[in-house]
Amino acid sequence: MAELINGKELAQSIRQILKIKCDELKEKGIKPKLAVILVGDDSASKIYVRNKNKACEEIGIEFEEYILKEETTTQESLIKLIENLNENPNIHGILLQSPIPQNLDINEAFRTINPDKDVDGFNPLNVGKLSLGQDTFVACTPHGIIKMLEEYKIDLEGKNVVIVGRSNIVGKPLIQLCLNKNATVTVCHSRTQNLEEYTKKADILIVAIGKPNFIKEDMVKQDAVVIDVGINRIDGKLAGDVDFENIKNKASYITPVPGGVGPMTIAMLMNNVIKAAENQKLKTK
Amino acid sequence: MAELINGKELAQSIRQILKIKCDELKEKGIKPKLAVILVGDDSASKIYVRNKNKACEEIGIEFEEYILKEETTTQESLIKLIENLNENPNIHGILLQSPIPQNLDINEAFRTINPDKDVDGFNPLNVGKLSLGQDTFVACTPHGIIKMLEEYKIDLEGKNVVIVGRSNIVGKPLIQLCLNKNATVTVCHSRTQNLEEYTKKADILIVAIGKPNFIKEDMVKQDAVVIDVGINRIDGKLAGDVDFENIKNKASYITPVPGGVGPMTIAMLMNNVIKAAENQKLKTK
Repeated sequence: MAELINGKELAQSIRQILKIKCDELKEKGIKPKLAVILVGDDSASKIYVRNKNKACEEIGIEFEEYILKEETTTQESLIKLIENLNENPNIHGILLQSPIPQNLDINEAFRTINPDKDVDGFNPLNVGKLSLGQDTFVACTPHGIIKMLEEYKIDLEGKNVVIVGRSNIVGKPLIQLCLNKNATVTVCHSRTQNLEEYTKKADILIVAIGKPNFIKEDMVKQDAVVIDVGINRIDGKLAGDVDFENIKNKASYITPVPGGVGPMTIAMLMNNVIKAAENQKLKTK
Repeated sequence: MAELINGKELAQSIRQILKIKCDELKEKGIKPKLAVILVGDDSASKIYVRNKNKACEEIGIEFEEYILKEETTTQESLIKLIENLNENPNIHGILLQSPIPQNLDINEAFRTINPDKDVDGFNPLNVGKLSLGQDTFVACTPHGIIKMLEEYKIDLEGKNVVIVGRSNIVGKPLIQLCLNKNATVTVCHSRTQNLEEYTKKADILIVAIGKPNFIKEDMVKQDAVVIDVGINRIDGKLAGDVDFENIKNKASYITPVPGGVGPMTIAMLMNNVIKAAENQKLKTK
């Protein structure tokens, strides 16, 4: 049976280290603080925000929620709020929870977030810096995946990494991160023909498509490392994009759902808030 | 024998269209103008700058050269020059010819170029916008490659595109452009193991590594489309990264060197200058 990559445990140990860093910052008079903006009533978003809030509390990061009503929020008022938070020296990180209502322009909103406070790594400037190999805020889910691979000493150099899913928040940043580790990288997606031809050759297979149990045993190479980013709900139970039960005996390493990538995403968000507070401290010195 | 993709001819027809657009802008009182900065004495760079100058003249784009001496150019003076050009309303495009001397920070210089005048597409903001699928200036060589494929009606949808080379100016932007066309994309590079395993499966093979005749016939699939970005000099003669003589009978389409990708790069630079002038006209209206 594959070794389980225990994201929950790893995230916990990262949070402990971050708590120490947070305490050190506070001793120097800096209180790391995250502002979260939520527009509308999406129930999944509310759960995400609550989980982020809890993680902040545990580490000692201050947390400010801006819950905006869908009916009364205009593009102008959203941009104005972000600009105010940009200028507020007590706010170190700004997170706009997606999705936001269709009538608002989320791209403009992400572009408006000060790149130095962009703890989600969604501002195009930070996306570009990642692509160019420069220091930046890396989107939390792909960052968490790379951290897990590092922690389990899974070397990517020269390996065949196959990413299924090309989203802006997971697949695309992963391309850059895996190239930085000298992997050969293939990106597959909904328009890929003969998907299994690619997945079957993957030394490391990373799946982020949002289709429960989509990747079957015969699509995976013996002893592959399998990273499952999917969080799907079936009959009230969580399932990944990977048919875990049938693949766990074939893979060398595998992430469970829940308890794999999910907790790492929040840990890396916390990591980015602490990094933002440290960077802003350096700038104001 | 493969059909030759005639970049020279295609670039010529693009330049003719750009000349018409340039004339139209001038009738409206806008004189498109490119500023080129060259630091130091690199002889290849001088040739590139001369070719860009010639292309500008043909189209009617004004051209200003800033030839800086290596000995007297500091980071501060370079940044100051870029800032002045950023503020100059008569300059629509700014190009910093690379390489620049080692003691100067080219990344800071590229970051300083106003994104609206960044006709090379090297500012991280524009790199990020490309990754996010937003309208931006696309780096000229990859942009030229996509234009060639479009012009020859080579559909990328669902195709297996293999890119050899992961540079910031060719390989990485190509990933995004090919994903935008719904291709399945693999990126190989110097650390890739068993390179031929990937190249042999490519429907479309794009090579940008700077090693003369590196890709041999047995590394290419029958009827593949082969795009050769390499410009290498052997005994005074130009050679691509692809063993053209032996592959031309196996490929369905192939670009020659010279006369393939090279002329397209300059044509797309001209395209970006005209686009910059049009955009800036809209902004000042």
